[in-house]
Amino acid sequence: MTATTDTSPRATDAVTVLGLGAMGSAIAAAFVERGYRTTVWNRTSSKTAPLVAAGATAAANPADAVAASPITVICLLDTAAVDAVLDSLVGAVAGKVIVDLTSGGPDHARAVARWAEDQGAEHLDGKIMSDPPDIGSGPVTLPVSGSRRAFEAHEQLLRELGTVTYHGEDAGAAAVEFMAQVAACYELLIGFLHTVALVRAEGADTVGFAERLAETVGQLAGLLPTMAHAVETGTYPPDLGPLDVQAALMPDLIAHRDAIGVESVRMREVRELMDRRIADGHGDEGFSGLFELLAVAATPER
Amino acid sequence: MTATTDTSPRATDAVTVLGLGAMGSAIAAAFVERGYRTTVWNRTSSKTAPLVAAGATAAANPADAVAASPITVICLLDTAAVDAVLDSLVGAVAGKVIVDLTSGGPDHARAVARWAEDQGAEHLDGKIMSDPPDIGSGPVTLPVSGSRRAFEAHEQLLRELGTVTYHGEDAGAAAVEFMAQVAACYELLIGFLHTVALVRAEGADTVGFAERLAETVGQLAGLLPTMAHAVETGTYPPDLGPLDVQAALMPDLIAHRDAIGVESVRMREVRELMDRRIADGHGDEGFSGLFELLAVAATPER
Repeated sequence: MTATTDTSPRATDAVTVLGLGAMGSAIAAAFVERGYRTTVWNRTSSKTAPLVAAGATAAANPADAVAASPITVICLLDTAAVDAVLDSLVGAVAGKVIVDLTSGGPDHARAVARWAEDQGAEHLDGKIMSDPPDIGSGPVTLPVSGSRRAFEAHEQLLRELGTVTYHGEDAGAAAVEFMAQVAACYELLIGFLHTVALVRAEGADTVGFAERLAETVGQLAGLLPTMAHAVETGTYPPDLGPLDVQAALMPDLIAHRDAIGVESVRMREVRELMDRRIADGHGDEGFSGLFELLAVAATPER
Repeated sequence: MTATTDTSPRATDAVTVLGLGAMGSAIAAAFVERGYRTTVWNRTSSKTAPLVAAGATAAANPADAVAASPITVICLLDTAAVDAVLDSLVGAVAGKVIVDLTSGGPDHARAVARWAEDQGAEHLDGKIMSDPPDIGSGPVTLPVSGSRRAFEAHEQLLRELGTVTYHGEDAGAAAVEFMAQVAACYELLIGFLHTVALVRAEGADTVGFAERLAETVGQLAGLLPTMAHAVETGTYPPDLGPLDVQAALMPDLIAHRDAIGVESVRMREVRELMDRRIADGHGDEGFSGLFELLAVAATPER
């Protein structure tokens, strides 16, 4: 057992934050408020003023900032900004822990992990699922992946920001989780907005519709793990009723959207997939079985 | 006040059910169980046997069945089957109430309403949101629209089947509600399945992902009425954070899906709409503002 595997509540009381946009500032403020000796740096140095007033220390450049603490949290605008800062940190991070919370994809997280390893640093990637105002107090979910040793040593510090889930040693895993959650949420929300256009064109009460749908969606959410389990086992019980009953509605549903002028790209796809599954003899199975027809498209490029 | 506007708990203790597929049989069984004198008819008469055994009366044809009760519930395979049965009921429904629970679109419901009016009958259209096994016991939602007088007279009978919501005199309104709810749910579910393909291709735990997403979606559901309100008022607070922050993720998110071979039709649409809203000066507003760019497409064909 070495010092870096110490899992005591507070492995360090010093932390550095690079990047003071809305999210970085909220993160630094949360650390200051929880009593961490917080060092901050931002490319535009005026952003440091409110944090210095609250008790943080401003560093003149990224290397000085990183030198001040055993762990550095990076939260910049985008991955290009991260790359620029890392270039300025070559030779300056050995023995340190780098936690990159910048929005980005898994490939970038993996590239940063390789860079950190080359530099003798430990690396974690995390993605913040929330608004800056919620940091440290509201409903924040923070998937993290990368060095397990660094995670165990600094889990408490990360928990100051929100609810942390650890997704394993693959540095890209947190970004996968984040992007998958964001994408699934956007699917619901953009589909909802299209459907609101339909409800509104029909002269119905959109807010009442949304309230009833919220209840339906709340119940439907409970079905998602069941559907994932069906995908894993390849057996598809009739989750929403049998496909052939569901499919019977689709022509009317699509014709109605067409008549009103509301787009139906996903509804056409669902109809086609349902029809193919039924033609393949799976009409008594559930919606989750449509996965079998997606999986083919999802594998060839790997 | 006439007999047909009687709102006492049980305006009739006699009901007829036309169509004994899985759903029609479940409906008839629920009525029998609740003590209604239930008359049934089905094109294939063998389907009547279990219901007759339970206490229902089988009629030889639709006209005889309708004659046996003041109210008739129709639940057939599709709208074509409804049209065929209505053809056989010309001159046989005057003074009766017809409740069509067959799956179909608003235009068909409105056509049936006109037919009923011509025939001197009152008409309600309803759509059952659930599986047959839940009828009378499980979580069944039943939007109903059409004759308010018939609804008020027979609300109690309809409530034997599930939770009833009345959507007004427009016979098509229940179908609009039903199709809108189904479409929004399918948007979530098909988007979820595509994203499961991504999570799985990345080697992550799909069931764990689905469990966490279920929590996220449960919270997101509460935002739907807020977003509908934003659409109604045309003011779009930053619901999920400001659009320009959300948009920053989209290129990475789409590139990641492309790299894995997972489709991204909705994500490309969301990105394009976000970029257009930001270019129009709305980068500080919320996701719901994307509606402004959909509404144009949704109106011209009306």
